[in-house]
Amino acid sequence: MADLAPDPAEEKLLAAEPGGRPDDRIDDERHDEENRLKPEYVRSVTTALDEDDTDRAYDLVEPLHPADIADLLELLDRDDRRALAAAITDLLSSEVIAELNDYVREDMIETLDAGAVAGIAEQLETDDAVQMIEDLDDADQQAVLAELDAEDRAAIESALAYPEETAGRLMSRDFVAVPEHLTVGDVIDYLRQREATTDFWEIFVVDAAHHPVGTCELSWILTTPRTIALTDVMKRDQTLVPAAMDQEEVALMFQKYGLISAAVIDENGRLVGQMTVDDVVHIISEEAGEDTLLLSGAGEGDINEPIRDAYSSRVRWLIANLGTAVIASAIIAFFGAAIEQLVALAVLMPVVASVGGNAGTQTMAVTVRAIAMNQLTRSNTGRMLVREMRVALLNGVTIAVLVGLATGVIFTPMLGGVIALAMVINVITAGLAGVAVPVMFERLDQDPAVASSVFVTMITDSMGFFAFLGLAVAAGLAG
Amino acid sequence: MADLAPDPAEEKLLAAEPGGRPDDRIDDERHDEENRLKPEYVRSVTTALDEDDTDRAYDLVEPLHPADIADLLELLDRDDRRALAAAITDLLSSEVIAELNDYVREDMIETLDAGAVAGIAEQLETDDAVQMIEDLDDADQQAVLAELDAEDRAAIESALAYPEETAGRLMSRDFVAVPEHLTVGDVIDYLRQREATTDFWEIFVVDAAHHPVGTCELSWILTTPRTIALTDVMKRDQTLVPAAMDQEEVALMFQKYGLISAAVIDENGRLVGQMTVDDVVHIISEEAGEDTLLLSGAGEGDINEPIRDAYSSRVRWLIANLGTAVIASAIIAFFGAAIEQLVALAVLMPVVASVGGNAGTQTMAVTVRAIAMNQLTRSNTGRMLVREMRVALLNGVTIAVLVGLATGVIFTPMLGGVIALAMVINVITAGLAGVAVPVMFERLDQDPAVASSVFVTMITDSMGFFAFLGLAVAAGLAG
Repeated sequence: MADLAPDPAEEKLLAAEPGGRPDDRIDDERHDEENRLKPEYVRSVTTALDEDDTDRAYDLVEPLHPADIADLLELLDRDDRRALAAAITDLLSSEVIAELNDYVREDMIETLDAGAVAGIAEQLETDDAVQMIEDLDDADQQAVLAELDAEDRAAIESALAYPEETAGRLMSRDFVAVPEHLTVGDVIDYLRQREATTDFWEIFVVDAAHHPVGTCELSWILTTPRTIALTDVMKRDQTLVPAAMDQEEVALMFQKYGLISAAVIDENGRLVGQMTVDDVVHIISEEAGEDTLLLSGAGEGDINEPIRDAYSSRVRWLIANLGTAVIASAIIAFFGAAIEQLVALAVLMPVVASVGGNAGTQTMAVTVRAIAMNQLTRSNTGRMLVREMRVALLNGVTIAVLVGLATGVIFTPMLGGVIALAMVINVITAGLAGVAVPVMFERLDQDPAVASSVFVTMITDSMGFFAFLGLAVAAGLAG
Repeated sequence: MADLAPDPAEEKLLAAEPGGRPDDRIDDERHDEENRLKPEYVRSVTTALDEDDTDRAYDLVEPLHPADIADLLELLDRDDRRALAAAITDLLSSEVIAELNDYVREDMIETLDAGAVAGIAEQLETDDAVQMIEDLDDADQQAVLAELDAEDRAAIESALAYPEETAGRLMSRDFVAVPEHLTVGDVIDYLRQREATTDFWEIFVVDAAHHPVGTCELSWILTTPRTIALTDVMKRDQTLVPAAMDQEEVALMFQKYGLISAAVIDENGRLVGQMTVDDVVHIISEEAGEDTLLLSGAGEGDINEPIRDAYSSRVRWLIANLGTAVIASAIIAFFGAAIEQLVALAVLMPVVASVGGNAGTQTMAVTVRAIAMNQLTRSNTGRMLVREMRVALLNGVTIAVLVGLATGVIFTPMLGGVIALAMVINVITAGLAGVAVPVMFERLDQDPAVASSVFVTMITDSMGFFAFLGLAVAAGLAG
């Protein structure tokens, strides 16, 4: 929808400027060595806003790259953010809007009327426009759509018809497709007379029914004689993305096959859009980072998420954790008489549970990551389990020796033997649970990162208390 | 080093084949719906290998994409893997080697002599060749380098001179750079007569001193009249990557600015290589997924990591965890008399510690992720802390009410009050520690994902036991 090709006239002006050294954007006065905006710079902007000096705020922000303007808006609190947005309206380009964190964008969009939102949407590429309005409530969404011109509205509505986080929702509808009978020269001539819209890296070759038959990188076109047939240059072995494919699958495909772009096809195999790697990069980062948050029960875990949402997603896991802690408590209560006789049991029992829990979390993290990367399938689950059992045995024995000796010296040798054996049992149980729980969720078609933690912790806590207290009673130490 | 451009003669043969429908690689007889190799297919290969039927194994593997051959090798156990490698030597292309998991590749390389490794290295692009030999021990590395021809050896040695995981080590030395005085037409003519080496997406424009002054996407060249000066088309606002930059920073830069490729410069600002997004995609996935593993203390956490390495990286965190569990035990021991009087304290104390630990892990995961994504800086840490305190208060009160009521009914109202108050204190402590510990590590220039877990758990365990047992004694329930 937007024209992202460089404007030669504008570029010429830039070129005429003296001292046109490249701006490398690192280690300048605004960025620290990790390319983050310096706190002093951010403070100078907020000071200007606090003093209502919007001209100064504008001058400070004007040299920033759009991605940095987006970062700056995210770093500010809500009041300053709105004040800044009001001060730099003409710097709020489509690139800034596209780079903004979802929650921050939503918060800013809420203050605008439908006409203004539609105005921004028209500047954006379809996929970015969709991202902007997909989270609005139905009434607001309809109001914005009504303000759009027919072509943009149709494109956005067709994207919204696909489920969230699928290729159909995320794909770009701007791509270059050419018929298969052309020569390289024909393609070059076609591209020259075609109106430039967005950047592209590959062109898609289609047959008469608009089915993709091959892809051709621009570098191949530029390095092949004009007279060669396109079908002799193109790569026939394509990776096609069905429009209904989940973004996680798309991301794995791009990684696996090292793709720059891929054709998106509808259920009839017709080319309807493309996914490009610059969009997929965000998905890869999101999907890979998501597991860290899901495993901890932190939900979306975005620092810009409204407090209400953060509370409701986290508290449910804390309540689940409470439920599993009650099971562990019941086991302790069952051995209440033993603890009354030998209070050392109460002192030592959390050690067994804690180390077991940590061992379980280690194995679980490895398993969840391997599942997410498609590295763990039915073909190698058995081998993985054997491997983890061997690591668990080594870990369990090491820890058992340390704990057993210390307990033997401080308390009694018998108690040292009991805690050592309980530790070995619990660390091996942890290894087993750390593989089995996520694999079980995966086979039930559930995301293994979501609920594995609660179950693994329940198993290691319960087994830790049970093995230690049970062995103590069996050994005649108490009870 | 390798010629990756399509061979027109070979493509022509393909084009002449009847029924050249695109291969979409999904839902075929070898892949499941998530694009993983089906267990039945893998089993058919291992069966062929077990029966020493190498021809059948070859025929089964031959239609696979190189990335799938790499996946297949990873799925097999060591014996089958070596048998398969021996059966399909001519299918083991540079692409397969480049796609292999580091540990699997290392394991396979170890069986080869220096000459064979050098033969493979010469087929690979420099960055992939470097990756293959960087983990060999010094003697083996020297032996392989000695077998290489002078040019390849020089390229690899110059890469190895940079530290691991920096742009200089990872960059490609194959790129297209042109002087700034050319027109678009000159560039096209130059590209046509230039020997095709690797694929490229952008060309770099350099001045007489080989300093990059701009970049130009191929699509801009293809859609601009031949007579226009290159300097009028190129983008001057470049993102330059210093060769010493860490791969994590490179990955964040590619994400932030939506880059396809970026020029790598040496300390004198001269263009020495390029990073392309297809390589960066692997880094993004690795870096984003790494935190899940580091937070759990699972080290590299690769399912192909040798057991010895997995043991040594994990056991050290279990020992650290043991150390912190001892602190918690000491606190319990301090209240030993109270527990002897009222065994309900021993039954309930793990609940306070467990929920607090979970709440701390949630906040810590959010904080670590935000730091990794450069979203949390000195500018907004205060705001983030206030936000987390508010979430913690809501969570703490919710859980306290549930636990307090249940304890009040099952035990005594006074004990219910004590556990409720202890829970609020511990969940708020958890929120504070979950932000403060990773931020503190970050400010000390340590990776916050590595050791935060141990400290946060120590704080929530200790505070859980101390608050609960201490309040119980203060309330006169025991002790």
